[in-house]
Amino acid sequence: MERLRVAFLGPRASFSHQAASESFGTAAADLLPQVSFADAFTALQQQEADYAVIPFENSTNGSVVQTLDLLADRNDLYKDVKVCGEYYLTVHHCLLVRKGTYPSGWAGYDGSITKLYTHPQAWGQCDTFLSQHFKGIERQDVSSTSKAAEIVSRETERSAAIASRFAAKFHDVDVLKENIEDRADNTTRFLILRNVLAGRTAQLELEQPNAPTAPSEAETTHKTLISFAIDHSAPGALADALLIFKAHGLNLTSINTRPSLRRAWQYIFFVECGRTPSDENKDAVLKALNDLRQATEFCRDLGTWKDQLGTNIA
Amino acid sequence: MERLRVAFLGPRASFSHQAASESFGTAAADLLPQVSFADAFTALQQQEADYAVIPFENSTNGSVVQTLDLLADRNDLYKDVKVCGEYYLTVHHCLLVRKGTYPSGWAGYDGSITKLYTHPQAWGQCDTFLSQHFKGIERQDVSSTSKAAEIVSRETERSAAIASRFAAKFHDVDVLKENIEDRADNTTRFLILRNVLAGRTAQLELEQPNAPTAPSEAETTHKTLISFAIDHSAPGALADALLIFKAHGLNLTSINTRPSLRRAWQYIFFVECGRTPSDENKDAVLKALNDLRQATEFCRDLGTWKDQLGTNIA
Repeated sequence: MERLRVAFLGPRASFSHQAASESFGTAAADLLPQVSFADAFTALQQQEADYAVIPFENSTNGSVVQTLDLLADRNDLYKDVKVCGEYYLTVHHCLLVRKGTYPSGWAGYDGSITKLYTHPQAWGQCDTFLSQHFKGIERQDVSSTSKAAEIVSRETERSAAIASRFAAKFHDVDVLKENIEDRADNTTRFLILRNVLAGRTAQLELEQPNAPTAPSEAETTHKTLISFAIDHSAPGALADALLIFKAHGLNLTSINTRPSLRRAWQYIFFVECGRTPSDENKDAVLKALNDLRQATEFCRDLGTWKDQLGTNIA
Repeated sequence: MERLRVAFLGPRASFSHQAASESFGTAAADLLPQVSFADAFTALQQQEADYAVIPFENSTNGSVVQTLDLLADRNDLYKDVKVCGEYYLTVHHCLLVRKGTYPSGWAGYDGSITKLYTHPQAWGQCDTFLSQHFKGIERQDVSSTSKAAEIVSRETERSAAIASRFAAKFHDVDVLKENIEDRADNTTRFLILRNVLAGRTAQLELEQPNAPTAPSEAETTHKTLISFAIDHSAPGALADALLIFKAHGLNLTSINTRPSLRRAWQYIFFVECGRTPSDENKDAVLKALNDLRQATEFCRDLGTWKDQLGTNIA
């Protein structure tokens, strides 16, 4: 079988790369870095990639609006792209140094680091550790945590990077101290997208190495993502649309909005719903979609996949 | 009467400054620039300001998450801050040059500008104009459009800034070409916040110079913003909560979510609803809040104000 091609948001050794690597762990896959989210969607639509792994939501920062805007697909550029899976990656930061700089590790660290590199967002995520051990040390912003690891791999002065263990391995640097982040539960949810016209992506059951204690097939919740727009002049139209999910026994697991860009203050809604498979409700999503088509200006089925977490918001 | 103190997000001559200036147009007010959104909320809570003017939503970019996170008030820091008004500001960009540089204006422009300054977001908003007239000209990112105007006011080489007419007046530079933005309808909605304990802010009727043809009092829609969290283990809880609005004749005008930060994948919801005043429904918001208190884990009334636009999403 031909090797799978999996697009992710670059650079190499980014958290997206890690998510792609872990979610396609045992599959024979080539991981393809993309410069932008839009490039990843384009590669998928044009079948230059079989899958794409894209960040959708972070437990601390919330939704990723670039991803919502691409899923909104206002110009019909990505009509064959659908969600087929999800992957949860807990964001752990480490303090990385050039190989061999501190042979006795953190226990023997002598305070000689004079400069730190990381992505601007990571400073705030490691505030407690940095205040305690690196107060007043020079900080240099770089474009990614992966880039920070790459820089210290080459520097001759005593510098350190804040980046993942995955980046440490990739750039061949030492982990001086691990899990230096303030919140141990900071997690990013990635969506795994596929092109529905690419036949061979239909069969693959993705390995999900970080799934919680695997529930039996009958108990596995399936999630579906649906986008729609409503008639803004009809009172109660949004409440009515959401009631359709409830009427068919579908629980809402997330709701997001983005500007329609057709008229100011009108929105595209993204509703994610969960269904526990049973004989009674096996057509619940289809029936809900049929009802939604009557109640909305447009509605689009963005795919169904196995829940990897087992929570619902409502 | 003592002069009003109105906080806005700085620097001076920013779009927030313009919104504060226009919405408090004829009132005797001192406008106070704040370094961050949080500073503006703090100034209001501590009664160092009577009002704050804060961006809430842009018609192209969507919701302003920093504002939602402050309204979420997860640590009860801003318990007396409520919304009391809104203001719509259409974002127009101009090409600004040092005073007197091009006395014959755009018609006589000779192509001699060699460098452009603006905030990174503004380049994309003026793409058509820049591609047509300034292809290949050096671009320098600066921290705000106001800063860009300030820089060109002092530069001796031939440079231009992209910023507002308001910033041009403030920094005393010439408008070489106005309305160079791609989308003429790009509009930011600002919320006007007050401290409910500050008695004198209760009486003021804010002037709203850009309100559409003023509807009669009886027809004016009042909007209310409510935040709440729901029991995530109860199926249908979100649909039930939204139904409460419908049951009391309240139309939803926006819905947003932010992470609760208490547990991953749980959310705080922000629902904005509209009510046309009439004898029948004058207690609709109070009744809905009472019902919501039964149906949610917490719910908070974030204020009621006069709609300045007259749209609803549902």
